[in-house]
Amino acid sequence: MTNQTLEQCRQELHDHLIDELLPFWMNRAVDRENGGFITHFDKDGNDSGEDEKSLIAQTRSIYTYASAHRAGYGNGALAEMARHGVDYLIGRMWDEEHGGFYWMTNRKGEVIIDQKIVYGQSFAIYCLSEYTLATGDSRGIEYAQRVFDLLQKYAVDTCYGGYFEMFHRNWTLKGPGAAGGDRKTLDAHMHLMEAFTTLYECSQQELHRRKLLEVITLLTERIMHPIHGTGIPQFWADWRVAPQIKFDVIWGWDRFTEDGAKREAEDNTSYGHNVEFAWLLLHALHVLGIPHSEYQEQLLKSFSHAVDFGIDWEFGGVFVEGSHAGVVYDREKEFWQQAEVLIGLLDAYRIFGDEKYGNAYENVHRFVIDKMINHPIGEWWPLMTRQGVPIWTHMSHSWKINYHTVRSVIQSIRRLDMLLSA
Amino acid sequence: MTNQTLEQCRQELHDHLIDELLPFWMNRAVDRENGGFITHFDKDGNDSGEDEKSLIAQTRSIYTYASAHRAGYGNGALAEMARHGVDYLIGRMWDEEHGGFYWMTNRKGEVIIDQKIVYGQSFAIYCLSEYTLATGDSRGIEYAQRVFDLLQKYAVDTCYGGYFEMFHRNWTLKGPGAAGGDRKTLDAHMHLMEAFTTLYECSQQELHRRKLLEVITLLTERIMHPIHGTGIPQFWADWRVAPQIKFDVIWGWDRFTEDGAKREAEDNTSYGHNVEFAWLLLHALHVLGIPHSEYQEQLLKSFSHAVDFGIDWEFGGVFVEGSHAGVVYDREKEFWQQAEVLIGLLDAYRIFGDEKYGNAYENVHRFVIDKMINHPIGEWWPLMTRQGVPIWTHMSHSWKINYHTVRSVIQSIRRLDMLLSA
Repeated sequence: MTNQTLEQCRQELHDHLIDELLPFWMNRAVDRENGGFITHFDKDGNDSGEDEKSLIAQTRSIYTYASAHRAGYGNGALAEMARHGVDYLIGRMWDEEHGGFYWMTNRKGEVIIDQKIVYGQSFAIYCLSEYTLATGDSRGIEYAQRVFDLLQKYAVDTCYGGYFEMFHRNWTLKGPGAAGGDRKTLDAHMHLMEAFTTLYECSQQELHRRKLLEVITLLTERIMHPIHGTGIPQFWADWRVAPQIKFDVIWGWDRFTEDGAKREAEDNTSYGHNVEFAWLLLHALHVLGIPHSEYQEQLLKSFSHAVDFGIDWEFGGVFVEGSHAGVVYDREKEFWQQAEVLIGLLDAYRIFGDEKYGNAYENVHRFVIDKMINHPIGEWWPLMTRQGVPIWTHMSHSWKINYHTVRSVIQSIRRLDMLLSA
Repeated sequence: MTNQTLEQCRQELHDHLIDELLPFWMNRAVDRENGGFITHFDKDGNDSGEDEKSLIAQTRSIYTYASAHRAGYGNGALAEMARHGVDYLIGRMWDEEHGGFYWMTNRKGEVIIDQKIVYGQSFAIYCLSEYTLATGDSRGIEYAQRVFDLLQKYAVDTCYGGYFEMFHRNWTLKGPGAAGGDRKTLDAHMHLMEAFTTLYECSQQELHRRKLLEVITLLTERIMHPIHGTGIPQFWADWRVAPQIKFDVIWGWDRFTEDGAKREAEDNTSYGHNVEFAWLLLHALHVLGIPHSEYQEQLLKSFSHAVDFGIDWEFGGVFVEGSHAGVVYDREKEFWQQAEVLIGLLDAYRIFGDEKYGNAYENVHRFVIDKMINHPIGEWWPLMTRQGVPIWTHMSHSWKINYHTVRSVIQSIRRLDMLLSA
């Protein structure tokens, strides 16, 4: 990419962040009546009224406001928002009896779903560690460590390694099948890597470093495809590949058939998830002080699979899913894959210097700026046709909040600045 | 075995227990000056003066006195001895700062080795759970659970499963090689199964049940030889077989060459350890309420390898070690293998009804009664020539205390009673 292109991309992202994205949230997210955040907004940015506060949406919001403050935005207002979110998270979502955070409350803070879901606990660790790094308030790291300790005690599979993911309130493991107690996923383990990275960045404890390294080895040796280096979504406890099914407790709207099955359930990978994994791994290695060259083969596989097969050179953006060998199954455009691919492609371009990554970045950047963002309102559309026509139109929901979008813009600006000053 | 033989064996064991073995310990073990137990006695049963109290010897002593009390012996005096031992263990060996028990103090209770060794922690869980079961004193299960929680947090390998075993005082993992931080052993994992069995028996907690089942799967699927079903002593972290080496911290006097290597370091198994594993597995299944038929193949392999290859039909007793295929390497007779084989062979005979196990029991029983026991003093010789002449002559040491001998006699009597009443 030329310096002119880099400058232009940076300017577009900066303007979007300052004029649209941060104001969207700063103007409407805080629930002054009940504490915590309102997280459901329609296409016009109006409160759509769903009476739920999910662990995912609350923790991701805290992460967003804390990390944006740490990155220098908001003049203190974002730190105050993060603190407001932590008050609710600790005050209303923490289980005083069994430990851990509940999965869902209503807006008033009454518990609706009391299960302990590792995916959600990982975001609690992530956001609370980021919050302490951003503000110095020690409540964050204190509760992050409590959750970490609970996961070590209750969630780890001491036979085959890795973490079980679905628990009842008292941390007994849920049953098999859709209840999820007999499976392990890429998703949860990747987000544990993300969470343990920030936990270790904050705590500097040797134990957190060790557990981060263990989950990295698990991801690269067991969870990524042995040939293609692409992410395999689901496994049995003993790491045999399991056909991908829909769980009773979900945190997204992945497309399944009516009976909860997946087309191509045993040969399915997400281009966006793979790139997200690669940049999160690079970030973890940076925090650990380990040269990325030690993981070069894995990184190149993750990045190039997405660029070689997942980029839509005709209409722009990155496709949803395809096979491990590359064939595309789902050509729609979902918001979070675009967001993660922006960060990851800049990392790939920055490290490997290959113009194919620069070109792919430009492609996705243009699709995001020109199609994915609902500029008059300020947030991104959740899902579009291949051509860029909105399919779903809500601006926010329990599973679509600001973590992917705001992080993408802040982290992409940071990487563009590195490229410009190189 | 005929009822007459069973009766005679029972009588001999009973007489040994009541007239020799329990009096040996009840008359000399309690350290009234410094607390805890004196654990070093020479061939005449006199205090041999070593200025050390090892975690192994203190915890094994507590187990012995508590379990003998629970089995109906001692008229309360053994429970009082166990309480005396728990006072010392909690008061002097517990690390108030980092948690867990130190590895070694001197007699006065000053810490000599502050490392946290999983093998020792497992005996703490075992003896403290047994102590609460025997006496109702809740301090036992309280500290057992504390140690269990620490192992889950610090010792588990969340990548490959199982437990790392060698830690510094603050629970950072020790280095590779002789420091042991890069290895996993049959020994520690088998004793964790033993400890978690009694922990679960006492606590009835679902978590303890789950972790017990996980370590059982680990033992049967990874640690036992895939063909012979025999125990493989040492592994790398990822469960590739590691050549057997001598660690810096030891809990026995296994024979190594001068440079810490082992003859046949990669094809070596202990007949006695395999039978101990099998009966401990049977006991775990009993506590879990799982039929032993589910593990029949493993059990038969463990028992029959020892009986087919390890029994000395010429001079009596069980040999020390041999190959996984069966060939004997070391024909000496060590005390603990005799002790464990007595219990296990009675279990095998009781369950499978095969006279080969009865004959092997009679053989080892006779060797123990006629050769292994130092009758005038009351305890067993630690090591004898194949023919039954003592090589080592101490009655007790940090690594040779009453746990194997007293447990063997009590558990064998219990099994002989079951056979007699069947």
